[in-house]
Order: sequence, then structure tokens, then C-alpha cells
Amino acid sequence: MAHRVINFNPGPATLPLPVLETVQRELLDYHGEGMSIMEISHRSATFDDLILEAESRVKHIMGFSDDYQVLFLQGGATAQFAAVPLNLSREGKTAAYINTGSWATKAIKEVEKLGKPFRVIASSEDDNFSYIPTDFSIGPDAAYVHITSNNTIFGTQWQEYPDTGDVPLVADMSSDLYCRRFDPHRFALIYAGAQKNAGPSGVTIVIIRKDLLERSPKNIPSILNYKLFAEKHSLYNTPNTFGVYVVNLVMKWIQDEGGIDVLEERNRKKARLVYDVLDASDFYRPHARKDSRSIMNITWRLPTEDLEKRFVAEAKERELVGLKGHRSVGGIRASIYNAMTLEGVQRLVEFMKDFEKKHG
Amino acid sequence: MAHRVINFNPGPATLPLPVLETVQRELLDYHGEGMSIMEISHRSATFDDLILEAESRVKHIMGFSDDYQVLFLQGGATAQFAAVPLNLSREGKTAAYINTGSWATKAIKEVEKLGKPFRVIASSEDDNFSYIPTDFSIGPDAAYVHITSNNTIFGTQWQEYPDTGDVPLVADMSSDLYCRRFDPHRFALIYAGAQKNAGPSGVTIVIIRKDLLERSPKNIPSILNYKLFAEKHSLYNTPNTFGVYVVNLVMKWIQDEGGIDVLEERNRKKARLVYDVLDASDFYRPHARKDSRSIMNITWRLPTEDLEKRFVAEAKERELVGLKGHRSVGGIRASIYNAMTLEGVQRLVEFMKDFEKKHG
Repeated sequence: MAHRVINFNPGPATLPLPVLETVQRELLDYHGEGMSIMEISHRSATFDDLILEAESRVKHIMGFSDDYQVLFLQGGATAQFAAVPLNLSREGKTAAYINTGSWATKAIKEVEKLGKPFRVIASSEDDNFSYIPTDFSIGPDAAYVHITSNNTIFGTQWQEYPDTGDVPLVADMSSDLYCRRFDPHRFALIYAGAQKNAGPSGVTIVIIRKDLLERSPKNIPSILNYKLFAEKHSLYNTPNTFGVYVVNLVMKWIQDEGGIDVLEERNRKKARLVYDVLDASDFYRPHARKDSRSIMNITWRLPTEDLEKRFVAEAKERELVGLKGHRSVGGIRASIYNAMTLEGVQRLVEFMKDFEKKHG
Repeated sequence: MAHRVINFNPGPATLPLPVLETVQRELLDYHGEGMSIMEISHRSATFDDLILEAESRVKHIMGFSDDYQVLFLQGGATAQFAAVPLNLSREGKTAAYINTGSWATKAIKEVEKLGKPFRVIASSEDDNFSYIPTDFSIGPDAAYVHITSNNTIFGTQWQEYPDTGDVPLVADMSSDLYCRRFDPHRFALIYAGAQKNAGPSGVTIVIIRKDLLERSPKNIPSILNYKLFAEKHSLYNTPNTFGVYVVNLVMKWIQDEGGIDVLEERNRKKARLVYDVLDASDFYRPHARKDSRSIMNITWRLPTEDLEKRFVAEAKERELVGLKGHRSVGGIRASIYNAMTLEGVQRLVEFMKDFEKKHG
């Protein structure tokens, strides 16, 4: 059996073991074709079946209606930071952004760089992004509202999505798509780099309400044009075929596990295990406010930086890896995406208790 | 042993078997890390070593000096069609494009779409792109000259690269980078989607002369900005980590095989085997003119479309697949990239002779 650690990396992140085993098994010969999935033409019937299956799973897991189209693009969220204003800006209207952390800030810097009208209608920068703002008004002239549903670095997550009325709601869900149920029809556009909850890096899932496709202007880079990719079912050019294949396997895994509600229950249980230790302790200090806590990324500090280093090092001795916090918060971050097992989190929690006993 | 066919797909294309075997072997546990390469952080020392190794191999195989920087980007040639004019255009100057086929045409349509000044200084469209034009003048005011080094669809290839003097020469080498030796220092920028000669789809190799990085303006989409990616050694955002890993393995395979000269000799031998059959036959009609023939993609017609269909079908019975020509030319196309073995081409040639005997 392969040696496997318990991987709390924030992304690229741990993948379901059955998915990796399938990839390994099929690697030289995909479904009897006599070639690897990497060697199959994106214009073949075989790949066409695969990408349509992946599209369908991406939609059905969350219950998106046929008013939505799924795209598999490249370039991660960074490409979407540009694609959203380039495609969705409207003459005389202003885009509204809510700033809840580093990735939201990057999205805002990109719309500014591209010279499209925007305003930041709320921000939690005043308290190092430890909470999700609830007090803001959108205004009827907004071209769209942009939020970041989960803030990987700070460990916060929207609990209730804002009601934006007729204004299209756009969400970067890179780090929490498929972690819980929500009403998909409140969104006009969702995008997610796959490398946290949905697959490897190098493929971006975009789910767009079809009426928005009419906004895409002709004079923007084709690679960022939603309409061109929608018309060709993501095959306007050669996609990351291997990435789409793995995403499809992860979507199948979600369905095999019992679907989104089963995963949500497990995710809440996993998160509760960690937060319970944090809340019962004076040694560990959680970063995110209670009302804004993420069930995907949990962030906390220890009394000293030296203890934080020791925590990471001693965790590693127990094969718990990827726990170092991002420099913007410091301390510890445990990323517990869908593919992190309950047992993995139990092992972490055990270690946290032992560490506090020893050093607290 | 896995069942493997002989794969003449134009791209995504056949990969070296030792590369696929390594990927398979390491898939659950990369170098003893206890995780898949897909699960490793792009910010880790492990991935940093990998991407620096890949960069170094990409440069050294062709002998690029330290005046050049290698980038691993996403979006294939389609993204580069936009990135080139967005980054390299200069006030008061006009880009010069040479149109040698479908991909060159797409590059031209993109510069036109983006409203950057350009002109087409030569084209072989008059004879369905069956040759590489040799009669053109660049003019001293050109921002850059753009060529497509090999035309996958039409089976033509530049034999001698044009001398552009001080004007930067830019080449889309998606389908022939690493097939033969050339003087790398005649180029200012080379780009190549990896999925033909260098790896899986979803990663683009860009090799740029460092002085050109100063041209990148600030107000273009970050994902298309060469300077931002150069400053961060391709880690401005999360790259296609798995793709970079496979590219690195393919580069290592090139080195293990004996390097570029060994591959070139083998490629010329493979191509000659096929062209010799075409030239000795009245049954097969090659598309490309003799002075413009590609050693990577060989295209030809048969007397009737019905015979062409039979050719593809009977080839498949012998496990020779991916031979159907592109609709722009029709007929047959054999893509014989680096990873296609001499034995594979011998099997094709044997079949071609048998088929001619039977149906000719």
C-alpha cells in the first residue's frame, strides 16, 4: 500500500483516495481505448462523452436548472477576476464588490486595473478580515455584485448569501463549492478553481446563467470570453483534458458518497470537532468571529510564534501536514475540504489536545 | 501489460510510455511525500524544486541562454494569441503576421479583435496553405513578426526561419518545439501548448527574451501579463501543477533519449519513411509542397473520400488510430511527434503499402 499522510494543504489539496486509485489504474489505458486519458483527442467521441458527463454532474449535484451552463476553463480564479468585469460590465452601471479577504482584494484590484467602473460596498479589512460584513446596500445601478463565498486565508465563510434582487450575484466559490447545500438559483455566476474541493489545479469550473452570456462583448480576449466557450461546450480550444477527467471523477465520488447533504453533514461534524477544541481552550485563539466561521478552513493562533512552529513540526511527526497558516494571519490553518476524512480530523484534534497538555 | 494502440492523434497526442509509467507509479505518493503530485502545494519547496527543474530542462535542451525566461502558463495557444499583442504591441508600430494555416489565421483574428495595429505580410491561403511563403518584407516599423512554425492541419513546416533583424521574432511552436535543432537566439518569444510534443493539454510553455518583459503594460488582464508571471517564476497564481510535472518528465525523457539531435535524426527518419511511400505512389497524393513538408504532421489524400474512410477504418483494425485528416484538408493525417516510435511508423508504412496493393 502507498504511504499516505493526512494532508491539510489549503490547495492544491487532498483528493479522495478512490479517485486517485482510479486515475492510477486507468493511466495507461483509458476505458480500453489503448491510450491514456492524456493522449485522447478533445475532439473525440470519448472525450465528448466525458465532458458532457462532467458538466451534468457539476449541475446536478447542486441542482442547477437548465437555465445554467457549466464551463471548464483554465487560469484559475485569477483569470475569472478579469473575465467577470470584461464579460459582465454594462455601460452606465457600476460593479459592486464586497471585500472579505486577500482573494476578494485581488478581484477588486483586477477590475480597477482593467478600468471598469466599480465600488467596494463593504469590507472587513478593519479587523483583518475576521468576519463577513452584513451591513451594505447594493443600489439598483449595480452591474453585478461580487462576493468571495469562503476566505481560505482568513477562515471565514458567508453563512447566508446576500439577497441582491435583480442584480446578478457573482461568487468566487473556489474553496467551498460542494461543501454544503445552497439555493443555486440565487446566483448568476459561480466560479471555482478546482484545486480545493473539486479536482487538481489547472481547471476552473464556471457555472453561468445563460442570459448573462449575451453581455459578452466581441473585443475581449477570446480565452476570457464566456460566450465563445459556452457556444462550444468548453471546447473553443483544447481544455485541460486530464483536469476535466479528474473533476468528473471527484463529482462521481460526491454522488457515490451520497451527495451534497451527506457531505455537508460530515463537513459540519469535522469543523465542529476542531472548533470545540478551540472554544474550550485559552491556549488556542481562533481568528474568525464565531458568526463568520468557515467549515472548510479553520485558522487560529497560539500564544507565541515559537509554539506555532513547534505545533507544525510536532504535527508533522504524526503525519499531519500542511497546517502552517498563511502569513496574513500567521499561526495555524487546517483546511478540511470534502476529501479530508473524519478520521483525519479526529487525528488532528487528538494531537491538538495532546499539544495543549504538553505546552499549555 | 496495459493494452496500447499506435496513436497518431494530432494533439492531445501520444506520450512516451516511460513517462506514463512514472506518472502511474508515483500517483499516490510523489517521491515519498505521502501525497499525489496533484495534492502538493504549489508554494512548497517540493514543487519549487520541480518547476525550477522543468524550467531548466526546457531551456537547456534547446540551449537558450540566460537572456531567456521560461514560463508555464495556462490557456494554450489561444491565450497566447491575445497575450502576444497585449504585451508586445508598441505605440506607433505595427505587428507583422505571416499566415500559413488555420492557427496562424486564428492568431491574426485575435490581434484584429483586440484592435492592435497589424498587417499580414505574407500568406499561403491562395493554395490551401500547402506551402510556406518565402517572399515577404518586414519593414523596420514592425512591433514584432509572428509566425507559426509548423502547421498541424496542413502538414507544412518552416524549413529556414526568417531573418527579422532587430525586429522581435515570435513563433507559435505548439506542434514542433523539440522536434529538431534550431538557433534559439533568433527568437524573441516562443510559445507552445504542451499537448503535442511536450506533455498533456492545459499547460503552455512560453520562452521569452527578458528584455521584452519591459513592454508588458499594467492595464491588461493579469493572467495574460508576461511580466507578472516572470517576476514570480510562473507562480503568480496556482499553475497546472500536474501538467508542469508531466512536462518535466517529458523533458527528462528527451534528455535520457540523448537530446535534441538524436530526436531530430529519428524524426527525420520517421518522416522519410512515410514521404517515401507517398512519393513512390500515384495512389496517395501528399498535400504539402515538397519544399514545405513537416516532419511532425504528414497529410495526404486518396483517390476518393470513400477510400479515405476505408483507410482510416482498416488502419484501426491494425491498432493504428487517429489518422483521419482535418476537414480543412480532408484525407489522412499522420502526426508523428517525438513520442511516436520508429516501430509505430514502420507499422503505418507497412499498412499503407498493403492498402495501396489492395485498393490501388
